[in-house]
Amino acid sequence: GDPTMYESYWQKKGDETTVVIPGWQFMSYFSDATRLCWFLEPEFAKQIVRLHNVVGNAVTENRHIVVGTGSTQLFQAALYALSPCAEAEPISVVSAAPYYSSYPLITDCLKSRLYKWAGDARSFSKNGPYIELVTSPNNPDGFARRSVVNGSEGILIHDLAYYWPQYTPISSPANYDLMLFTVSKSTGHAGMRIGWALVKDEDVARKMTKYIEINTIGVSKDSQVRAAKVLKVISDNSEGPNEGDSFFEFSYRVMAKRWKQLREAVQQSGLFSVSDFPPQLCMFLNRVFEPQPAFAWIKCEGDIEDCESFLRGKKILTRGGKHFGVSPKYVRISMLDRDKNYETFVRRLSTIRS
Amino acid sequence: GDPTMYESYWQKKGDETTVVIPGWQFMSYFSDATRLCWFLEPEFAKQIVRLHNVVGNAVTENRHIVVGTGSTQLFQAALYALSPCAEAEPISVVSAAPYYSSYPLITDCLKSRLYKWAGDARSFSKNGPYIELVTSPNNPDGFARRSVVNGSEGILIHDLAYYWPQYTPISSPANYDLMLFTVSKSTGHAGMRIGWALVKDEDVARKMTKYIEINTIGVSKDSQVRAAKVLKVISDNSEGPNEGDSFFEFSYRVMAKRWKQLREAVQQSGLFSVSDFPPQLCMFLNRVFEPQPAFAWIKCEGDIEDCESFLRGKKILTRGGKHFGVSPKYVRISMLDRDKNYETFVRRLSTIRS
Repeated sequence: GDPTMYESYWQKKGDETTVVIPGWQFMSYFSDATRLCWFLEPEFAKQIVRLHNVVGNAVTENRHIVVGTGSTQLFQAALYALSPCAEAEPISVVSAAPYYSSYPLITDCLKSRLYKWAGDARSFSKNGPYIELVTSPNNPDGFARRSVVNGSEGILIHDLAYYWPQYTPISSPANYDLMLFTVSKSTGHAGMRIGWALVKDEDVARKMTKYIEINTIGVSKDSQVRAAKVLKVISDNSEGPNEGDSFFEFSYRVMAKRWKQLREAVQQSGLFSVSDFPPQLCMFLNRVFEPQPAFAWIKCEGDIEDCESFLRGKKILTRGGKHFGVSPKYVRISMLDRDKNYETFVRRLSTIRS
Repeated sequence: GDPTMYESYWQKKGDETTVVIPGWQFMSYFSDATRLCWFLEPEFAKQIVRLHNVVGNAVTENRHIVVGTGSTQLFQAALYALSPCAEAEPISVVSAAPYYSSYPLITDCLKSRLYKWAGDARSFSKNGPYIELVTSPNNPDGFARRSVVNGSEGILIHDLAYYWPQYTPISSPANYDLMLFTVSKSTGHAGMRIGWALVKDEDVARKMTKYIEINTIGVSKDSQVRAAKVLKVISDNSEGPNEGDSFFEFSYRVMAKRWKQLREAVQQSGLFSVSDFPPQLCMFLNRVFEPQPAFAWIKCEGDIEDCESFLRGKKILTRGGKHFGVSPKYVRISMLDRDKNYETFVRRLSTIRS
């Protein structure tokens, strides 16, 4: 989902998040040669810690920060770092269906002998070590998740791209061994290609850094500098007197409105269903609300077997359930498009009759 | 080699290459959805073509441009795109020694079943398809290169990172199927992590784009925008009335001075040797000169077997020949460090006696 919905907020903020970069700055490969992650800009690291502390969505104490070209690169860095070196067989990588459709593609892209995609975590029963991907809230269906495999040798990667208050109540700071975040879904700046990992184990953080060194010799300094500025403005406004106009208040309101519209459209049509989510207290926004995920995960009820094709016929572009490891009766639709496109989508959905 | 030598030039240029990026710009994953490489900024593409035309170092007609997070990522994209899909065995990847020390590390990093490092191209004699990396001018030794394997099923990747007039005479526009370039070595902006490929075959360009989509979902827009500005200023100044102060004139002069100093130091010491390079006419600078590579490739003469250790003892940090597939009598040293560090290096080198 291209998060273009956020453009209007940053446009309104005007110069506050503008960056000015002279031609002679940030020329070196290095950001700070004394750091474990030597290509991480110190100011960006500082703003990551600050934002997590302001929002309360992740523990940053005793964590190493590794910056990546989006969380996609960090996911690969984590696979590289967590795979046993000396195994004869590749380690299995699993995630409970429905899972993010890119996970299998990324994992098997180069047919690595280190790791291989092994499908739905719920039906995984092999002995020995494995890597389980836990996306929470989950992409595509929006539910909070915990690991599901009951093995003793599991290694977990927590993808927390959507654990932000516009999407779900922040109940407590996430406190896992390896957590992935990205600006794409938190602030909407997908074009920066910036993500970060909070990593407990030093050796794992070191190996992830090594992967990114080999893969791209670090991460764009320009985008790190810009991301630092955006995170700083979000933290400043969340704490300051203009709290009501803060980024998360704005984006929470847009998502609340869109989910209300979606549920009305689904009801009007009568052909589809979407999940209900239990309301919870958000410690950051200090209010009780139901999760309002970045994707709508819609099921075609009745006889329609291929929901993606059916909706394409109604001029609604979606991604079908089989990409996510489940039935084609399901489709995923982005909730983060620009206002106009979103309005068109719900209007079209609401008028579909059997 | 960290190309920090170039900082002083861009500092002198002041505001000319400054970029200003408002918070609401370049938020989307997409740069131009109608393009084969959908994450390539159109202005950057335009400036790439213009600079190659101004300098005359590469043919851009009938080429697809693929942008990458440095040419390192593009090299991996090329391996992915050029590997046969249905082979039982990984395709061999070779390069004539001394070769860039990262090639084997990158190629074998994930133990891919698609491709594998097969060492020195000069001793490669396997039948069937193979990929040969041709770096010209070569890293580490600075010589102009052509492919050396005499096989009928070879696929070539030309790494032309150093085919710019500050390093070598531009004799004619390079005209190969797959050419890699990077701002790190051309303009000195290593921190941007921006490279580009000129690709003749549409299907190969498409697969390279696919790899970068899977690996990092595109390339930082901020750095592409900044790179476009830097390339534009270089082209403007190369063509304008201040030609004498152009980027390539400046960097040519610095490299010429440094190579003179290096040869003097080598002579004073008497313990080392460096290659001579045949002078050639540069069509861009319109003058005859000897190549003045970005690295010094130094041989310890006499009894010293491990040149890297020997020089470390003299407080000179180098990378030894074995990393490049040759004898430890050789070492590579960057010629692109800041003035002060370079002066220290040649002073130390010149005073070493047996």
